[in-house]
Amino acid sequence: VGKPVFPSERMYQLTPPGVILGLAWTAMGGSTLYIESVPINQSKDRVGGLQLTGKLGDVMKESAQIALTVAKGFLHDPAYLSMDTDFFEKNAIHLHVPEGATPKDGPSAGVTMVTSLLSLAIGRSVKQDLAMTGEISLTGKVLPVGGIKEKLIAAKREGVKYVILPSGNQSDYHDLANSIKDGLEISFVSEYREVYRIAFE
Amino acid sequence: VGKPVFPSERMYQLTPPGVILGLAWTAMGGSTLYIESVPINQSKDRVGGLQLTGKLGDVMKESAQIALTVAKGFLHDPAYLSMDTDFFEKNAIHLHVPEGATPKDGPSAGVTMVTSLLSLAIGRSVKQDLAMTGEISLTGKVLPVGGIKEKLIAAKREGVKYVILPSGNQSDYHDLANSIKDGLEISFVSEYREVYRIAFE
Amino acid sequence: VGKPVFPSERMYQLTPPGVILGLAWTAMGGSTLYIESVPINQSKDRVGGLQLTGKLGDVMKESAQIALTVAKGFLHDPAYLSMDTDFFEKNAIHLHVPEGATPKDGPSAGVTMVTSLLSLAIGRSVKQDLAMTGEISLTGKVLPVGGIKEKLIAAKREGVKYVILPSGNQSDYHDLANSIKDGLEISFVSEYREVYRIAFE
Repeated sequence: VGKPVFPSERMYQLTPPGVILGLAWTAMGGSTLYIESVPINQSKDRVGGLQLTGKLGDVMKESAQIALTVAKGFLHDPAYLSMDTDFFEKNAIHLHVPEGATPKDGPSAGVTMVTSLLSLAIGRSVKQDLAMTGEISLTGKVLPVGGIKEKLIAAKREGVKYVILPSGNQSDYHDLANSIKDGLEISFVSEYREVYRIAFE
Repeated sequence: VGKPVFPSERMYQLTPPGVILGLAWTAMGGSTLYIESVPINQSKDRVGGLQLTGKLGDVMKESAQIALTVAKGFLHDPAYLSMDTDFFEKNAIHLHVPEGATPKDGPSAGVTMVTSLLSLAIGRSVKQDLAMTGEISLTGKVLPVGGIKEKLIAAKREGVKYVILPSGNQSDYHDLANSIKDGLEISFVSEYREVYRIAFE
Repeated sequence: VGKPVFPSERMYQLTPPGVILGLAWTAMGGSTLYIESVPINQSKDRVGGLQLTGKLGDVMKESAQIALTVAKGFLHDPAYLSMDTDFFEKNAIHLHVPEGATPKDGPSAGVTMVTSLLSLAIGRSVKQDLAMTGEISLTGKVLPVGGIKEKLIAAKREGVKYVILPSGNQSDYHDLANSIKDGLEISFVSEYREVYRIAFE
C-alpha cells in the first residue's frame, strides 16, 4: 500500500462570476493564478474605481486600470454587448489575486482582468477549464507575452483544457514539443472581442 | 516547406480615433509607439482630467498634462477648430502607451499626445501610415527632440510613409544618409496647427 | 555652396500674452527660458489655483505660488491696475517652463512669473526683446539673484535688447566688462510696479 494521496486540488472546481484563471510566469517556472473581482460599496459622492490587493507591482496595477477602461467600453459598445448597464458607474470593484503573500507583476494578466470584470458585470461564469494570458491595450488589442512554454506546462498540470493566447505568440507556440501541446486546445486572439466570444459563448 | 511564417505585424492596421503612432528613442535604438486615448466616466462633482498608464516617467506625465491644455485650447480657438464642444470638460481621458511593462519617459511624445486627444475629441482618425515626434510647449510651439536618425530607421521598419518632425531638427535630418531618407515623406513644423493640418486634412 | 544653414531661431519671434522671457543660470552657464501661462478650466466647486509643469524644483514651485499671490494683489491694487476683474478667481492657470526634460529650480524667475500671470490676466503682450530676472517677495519687493554675468551673455546671444535686473545686483553689473554690457539697455528695479511699467508701457 503506501501513503494516501491528497491531490493538490484546484482552488476553484467551478469558477463563479468574477473569477478567471490566468497563467503566470517567473524565473522559477510557470503557474496558474486566479483573478477575483467582487463589487464593494462606495461613498455616495464617489463613483466607480478599483481597489487592488494581492501584492501587485506597479505594472500590474496599471494593467488593472487599463482592464477597467476596456471592460467599461466593451460593456457599452453597440457592436458587442451594448448592455444598458451602469454597473461600473454604480459599483467600485475590489480585484484580488491570490495568494496574498506572493509578489506579482507584469502586464500579462490584462486579458484575464478584463474578463474577470466583464464576468462580474454581466453575472455569468466563463467556460470551465479555460485559462488565458495576454497583455491588453486601451482599445482592446491583445499583445504577446513571455513564458508561453512555462505557462502551458503549468496549465496542463492544473487540468486546464482550453487556453487563450495572443496571436503574437504563435511562433513561440509552434516551436514547442508536441508533448507540451498535446491535450490543450489553443485559441489565438488579437482583439479582446475574440476572447469574449470564447469565454462566454 | 520549412517553418511557417508568423509576420510581426503592426499593432494597428488602421488606427481608430484617439490612437496615434509616435516615434521613440533610447540608448538601445529607435522604436515606434502608439498613444491610445479613451474617454472614461467620472464623478459628477469632478470635471476633466487625465488618467495615465504605460509606466510613464515624470517628464512624460507632465508632457501629457501640457498636451491636454494645448488640445483644449486648440479645440476652442476661433482661428482653427472653433468647435462648440465641451468634450474635455465632460470627459476624463485615459491615456495609455503600450507596451505596459516598458518604462518610457521624455517630452518627445508631446505632439503625438495632443493629436491623440484631438483625434478623440473630434472623432476622426488621422492619416494612415503617419508617425510624428516633437516636444510641445504650452502655447503650441513644436520643439526639437533627440534621436532623429534612430526614429526614422524605426519608422521605415514599421512601414511608415509620412513623418512629422520639428523644424528645429532640420539640420539633423539633412546630415542623414539618403538610404535612411529614401521612401519617407517628411514635414517640418514649428507650430501645432501645422501638425493638425497634416494629420487631419 | 556647402551645407545649408538652419539657424537656431528663438522659440518665439513675438511673445503672446502670458509668455515672458526670463534668464536662468546654472554651473554650465547662462541661458534664456520662457515662462508660459495659459488659463485652464476647472471644476465648479474649486476656484483659482496653479498647475505647474517643466520639471520644476520645490523652490521654483513655491516661487510660482508667490507669483500668483503677487499678481492677484497687483491686479486689484487701487494704486496700480485697480482692474475690476476676477480673472484669477475664475480661472486656474497652467504655467509651464520649456524645455520639459530640463530640471529647473531656484527663485530667480519670480519676477518673470508674476509678469507672465499679469500679461495673461490683462490680455497684453509685453515689450518685445525684453528679458528679466529677479526673486519676488510676497509684497512685491524684487530681490537680487546670482549669475548676472552668465545671464547677460545668454541674453545677448538670444538677441535680447532690454533687461530688467534687481537693484541689489547693481554692483555685480558694474564689475562687468564693457564687451558684455554693450548693446543691452538695463533697468534696475526694487519693486514689482517698476517691472510692470517697463514691461507694459
